[in-house]
Amino acid sequence: MKYGVESAGPEAHRYRLVSRAARSARSIVRVGQRAAFGGAALAVCAGPCSVESREQLETTAAAVAKAGANVLRGGAFKPRTSPYAFAGLGEEGLRYLRDAADRYGLAVVTEVLDPRDVDLVVRYADMLQIGTRNMQNFPLLREVGGAPKPVLLKRGIAATIEEWLMAAEHIVTGGNAQVVLCERGIRGFDPHTRNVLDLAAVPLVQNLTHLPVIVDPSHGTGVRALVAPMTLAAVAAGADGVIVEVHPHPASAYSDGAQSLTPAEFAEAMEGLALVAAAVGRPLPERAAAAA
Amino acid sequence: MKYGVESAGPEAHRYRLVSRAARSARSIVRVGQRAAFGGAALAVCAGPCSVESREQLETTAAAVAKAGANVLRGGAFKPRTSPYAFAGLGEEGLRYLRDAADRYGLAVVTEVLDPRDVDLVVRYADMLQIGTRNMQNFPLLREVGGAPKPVLLKRGIAATIEEWLMAAEHIVTGGNAQVVLCERGIRGFDPHTRNVLDLAAVPLVQNLTHLPVIVDPSHGTGVRALVAPMTLAAVAAGADGVIVEVHPHPASAYSDGAQSLTPAEFAEAMEGLALVAAAVGRPLPERAAAAA
Amino acid sequence: MKYGVESAGPEAHRYRLVSRAARSARSIVRVGQRAAFGGAALAVCAGPCSVESREQLETTAAAVAKAGANVLRGGAFKPRTSPYAFAGLGEEGLRYLRDAADRYGLAVVTEVLDPRDVDLVVRYADMLQIGTRNMQNFPLLREVGGAPKPVLLKRGIAATIEEWLMAAEHIVTGGNAQVVLCERGIRGFDPHTRNVLDLAAVPLVQNLTHLPVIVDPSHGTGVRALVAPMTLAAVAAGADGVIVEVHPHPASAYSDGAQSLTPAEFAEAMEGLALVAAAVGRPLPERAAAAA
Amino acid sequence: MKYGVESAGPEAHRYRLVSRAARSARSIVRVGQRAAFGGAALAVCAGPCSVESREQLETTAAAVAKAGANVLRGGAFKPRTSPYAFAGLGEEGLRYLRDAADRYGLAVVTEVLDPRDVDLVVRYADMLQIGTRNMQNFPLLREVGGAPKPVLLKRGIAATIEEWLMAAEHIVTGGNAQVVLCERGIRGFDPHTRNVLDLAAVPLVQNLTHLPVIVDPSHGTGVRALVAPMTLAAVAAGADGVIVEVHPHPASAYSDGAQSLTPAEFAEAMEGLALVAAAVGRPLPERAAAAA
Repeated sequence: MKYGVESAGPEAHRYRLVSRAARSARSIVRVGQRAAFGGAALAVCAGPCSVESREQLETTAAAVAKAGANVLRGGAFKPRTSPYAFAGLGEEGLRYLRDAADRYGLAVVTEVLDPRDVDLVVRYADMLQIGTRNMQNFPLLREVGGAPKPVLLKRGIAATIEEWLMAAEHIVTGGNAQVVLCERGIRGFDPHTRNVLDLAAVPLVQNLTHLPVIVDPSHGTGVRALVAPMTLAAVAAGADGVIVEVHPHPASAYSDGAQSLTPAEFAEAMEGLALVAAAVGRPLPERAAAAA
Repeated sequence: MKYGVESAGPEAHRYRLVSRAARSARSIVRVGQRAAFGGAALAVCAGPCSVESREQLETTAAAVAKAGANVLRGGAFKPRTSPYAFAGLGEEGLRYLRDAADRYGLAVVTEVLDPRDVDLVVRYADMLQIGTRNMQNFPLLREVGGAPKPVLLKRGIAATIEEWLMAAEHIVTGGNAQVVLCERGIRGFDPHTRNVLDLAAVPLVQNLTHLPVIVDPSHGTGVRALVAPMTLAAVAAGADGVIVEVHPHPASAYSDGAQSLTPAEFAEAMEGLALVAAAVGRPLPERAAAAA
Repeated sequence: MKYGVESAGPEAHRYRLVSRAARSARSIVRVGQRAAFGGAALAVCAGPCSVESREQLETTAAAVAKAGANVLRGGAFKPRTSPYAFAGLGEEGLRYLRDAADRYGLAVVTEVLDPRDVDLVVRYADMLQIGTRNMQNFPLLREVGGAPKPVLLKRGIAATIEEWLMAAEHIVTGGNAQVVLCERGIRGFDPHTRNVLDLAAVPLVQNLTHLPVIVDPSHGTGVRALVAPMTLAAVAAGADGVIVEVHPHPASAYSDGAQSLTPAEFAEAMEGLALVAAAVGRPLPERAAAAA
Repeated sequence: MKYGVESAGPEAHRYRLVSRAARSARSIVRVGQRAAFGGAALAVCAGPCSVESREQLETTAAAVAKAGANVLRGGAFKPRTSPYAFAGLGEEGLRYLRDAADRYGLAVVTEVLDPRDVDLVVRYADMLQIGTRNMQNFPLLREVGGAPKPVLLKRGIAATIEEWLMAAEHIVTGGNAQVVLCERGIRGFDPHTRNVLDLAAVPLVQNLTHLPVIVDPSHGTGVRALVAPMTLAAVAAGADGVIVEVHPHPASAYSDGAQSLTPAEFAEAMEGLALVAAAVGRPLPERAAAAA
């Protein structure tokens, strides 16, 4: 009896571009004017799950910039389990993101779902997010592999480490070497949490690849009370940054309210993070000279 | 502490179109001239993982038609973990599929990966397959939701039943009610098999939805010796059909050789299947009057 | 970086006694006067989760014997997640089991939890069940390895195939070669079912070992409506038997009511099973000349 | 269709003794003369997987005490997948543990597998470990529930949070309230690591129960290079301590060599831990006035 591994041959399964063998120095991926992933300083991305309104974005951007984030996150195109759930504001949402980020000295990371939207998102965003559901959407990987902006590649919900790194390899073979990996939790069996945050994947992946890796404790747990402790744990494990959902009014958020921090909770988490980051020799992002 | 379910609200999470409540009679999805999914007779799809050559297709189509299959499967656009693995012949592969199927009285099911390829695939195929990696590729679901051909929706590798049925709902809300579900194994922890074939999902889903459901024992196990027993088990569990990988020379297949049956093994499996199908009151497909 | 496999050495990880290499013919394990596991005929074990009363046992034994079962199951020592749940009648329950089984010509299988209870259970039962929580309870395995009765070894809730077969090897090295394996579902992520019934493990294990293997569709699904289809599927996949929970009044069962069949549902499932069993060349157990 | 939850009733599934509702203050569990779990200071347990010789224990105890551990771990009774692997030195191993611990001012934690061995282990150890395979070995839980020593309760390899806390409840109902929980990794699908270390379980469990919780990064990853980062991450997540495998010569360890740190690696990890612990306001254990 033979077992079911793919018959592509060992050569096909070697990481040619993303491995430590291919490049021994760790990559630094610069995003926008000031953010960088993979250097000494951490990257801190924060913002709402969905872009809901101009006002929501402005409030959130002001708060997260003040608390020390350097990248604004927010979804204008939302992948939603149900076809009846809010699916995002589209280009209007991209505009709100760009404007709010610019006002507060932040870079913008936002998800692109459709290969036909890559050009549009490139016009507004500093970094293109490939979500967990699209980690092996190869036409989309090919498209962002040809885009002039860095890519944040989330791990698929049950992706092996090999599948994840090979997805990165798909992008890099397209010519875009500016890839940052994001651990965001894998499917688990316990109903208390939305996913199982696999923090050991951080140092594991750093042993295998030169790409930066960050952590999403919001999707990784799905539970507000767990976000701050897992943010600290991520950085203690060696993550190059975090991406955290922050919403001015989580209870009325269009999506992911249960896992979103308020601005005050985020600011408090950042204070704790500063101490842990210092303990592992990683400064927080420089505060934006800020704005408005 | 609140736990992390999506905040879309209960209404958003109701199946409006695919549930038994929406339609109490089981749906029958007709594919091509003679195949049907969800009626009394089973649907049997067979063929290679990848379309590799005209000759390979002709040989396989002849063999599977003779053994009792009524749908020819084969990939012209292949999603591959590694960017260095064979990714399919594209339109040339679609032509080989169409020609071989027509010669032997079979319908064609083949995967579409890119929303921009849906029109092309529609021209050649009788049924559009959405693969496991694309179960929540919403732009693609939207595109096939507007296509004039039935859709075979594979379950995502770690998809919950709700996510799977909601993906079907995405297609049906687009106007295309001709959806067949396919259980193809979920991610597991044992290295002996490629996936864990979740056969209980078959009667479970039949309790929840009116859509037909078939089983893929090839990807579901990844191990040739397990394909025939799981084919029989699938039908005993109530599946409306099966989809099986068959290759004239598995050892030299471009992909999935370890789980492909030879034509002789497939013919033997079909003999066993005929007996089990009769035991649960499900006839095999009528033999094509055939051809050539 | 080295990965975390046990350093016991390859020799330690070879199955010396339970493998097909050690014994090419399939083992037949005889239980009580008439039941056998691993021969041409199937073994059918049925009965309540917990032994609750003499009357409950008599009613159930009569019904399952009439429907074609040849082994009575029932728990006198119950492993329960909560310390506040009903934990079984102990020796009194064993007596009820023995009496009811004798009256209706059935053998008895029942769980033993504590190595200090093995002698007691041996006096009443024909077969000792090691439950899923105790698959790697090595002192208990050692004890039943020295007992004069066959053992039903359930798979651990997340046990690999290797761990399961090695647990059998633990018993057989103790001198008791009368071991039957039981697939009963592994932990999964979907809330609709209690476990994921891994039916492909049946033919897989039959390729690796000479021991008989049966299936528990009751714990494997946790859902009454799925028990009958999965019973049929198990036998179609090649299982040497099944073990099914049957309770005269599931709604008031002390445990596992949601997955227990009524006697009428069980009789109907057995009718379906007879047809599928015949289709794969496996007769049902001979009806007991019966009783009372 | 009804789904398969246990029918024990809601009352049975309430934590009466281990919940935050039962006791709002966090419990402090004192072990031996100086160690405490759940207070401000961390507990650090370290030592070999298996006790192999007096010399091995003395060397390891000296090294881990010097590096800052306050509890010596080591297995005298070893649960092993294979019956042909080294299963421990038994009472001789317990003596080596006790002697080495006393010489270096450490407490002793060691696993007990068999309810009949509890009295023996109590004579040598300061803390009784219930291993992952025995988390639901209820006769053993009952026995340690009556023992006069604290218990370290490891999480089962696929245990839900509820099952884990209910196992603790089983012990506490027996009269022994001195229970410490230990997250040690759950079964996962990626072959790079032995388990998936579920660090979010730490703050989650601290929200649900007053019991202390520590983390085992050695079993949790199975990979030496991941142990130090996950030790730091555990404490950043709020763990009350860690338990780490340390062996003077991992390459020749009888068990778990691939995940054992050398004494030098452990000392380095402790230096990093001191910084992170300080960042989250948790002092390391006081150094033993030491010895010899």
